[in-house]
Amino acid sequence: MTHGFTLDARLAADTEPVADFVLCRVRLMNDARFPWLILVPARPGLSEWHDVGPDDAALLWDETARAARALETLCAPEKINIAALGNIVRQLHIHVVARNTGDAAWPGPVWGAGTTEPYTPDALTSRREALAALLAGG
Amino acid sequence: MTHGFTLDARLAADTEPVADFVLCRVRLMNDARFPWLILVPARPGLSEWHDVGPDDAALLWDETARAARALETLCAPEKINIAALGNIVRQLHIHVVARNTGDAAWPGPVWGAGTTEPYTPDALTSRREALAALLAGG
Repeated sequence: MTHGFTLDARLAADTEPVADFVLCRVRLMNDARFPWLILVPARPGLSEWHDVGPDDAALLWDETARAARALETLCAPEKINIAALGNIVRQLHIHVVARNTGDAAWPGPVWGAGTTEPYTPDALTSRREALAALLAGG
Repeated sequence: MTHGFTLDARLAADTEPVADFVLCRVRLMNDARFPWLILVPARPGLSEWHDVGPDDAALLWDETARAARALETLCAPEKINIAALGNIVRQLHIHVVARNTGDAAWPGPVWGAGTTEPYTPDALTSRREALAALLAGG
């Protein structure tokens, strides 16, 4: 079912791989300001969340919830933000972002807020490994 | 199952009722800049999208998709934005927003963008009735 799927070039450039779920590629946004996962259903030509098929919808729910719980375990955030926007990158991707009072965009949305601050190489490796371990535990 | 549920006061103030689904109250954001529905699961104490129970999760998916399709039918937008943020209002609510190139926040997110422009009374009635008819059709 992933035949024909190619990750959007901008998503590939802005994120780093963390895990492959049954439906979704799970990627870490390379922005140290926010613990931020992006889930991309590996289905070609999909743009709108409500166009996901019924079987995939259940998987997408489950996998998004797993990503949210991994961020909760890792960061104990005040709130999780979940969104499918796609105004710029049309390939369907679900943002799962851990938010806290006083973070760089609080209480506003993270999209378009300020300037991305890439992780240092060590911090990126550390965060990817921690999230991969949590996501593997399901 | 809706016992003990009360709509958050800020959501009540910012929106107008459109339909009652099995799980969600469907409300229209009173901002004429964006065709914008908000779905509120009528469950007390719910804040995070991933804390919705498995049965409700399927309902929430279905009802959110119905809301998105109603906006597509009514407005033929370029993109639908779907999000559960809750940084300010903690009661779980799902935004379903019809977006177009050149709208008041494009391509950025609608939350926190500019100043709300309430509908005129006639326009509000017209939009609520049109959406209620579309949502009743499933």
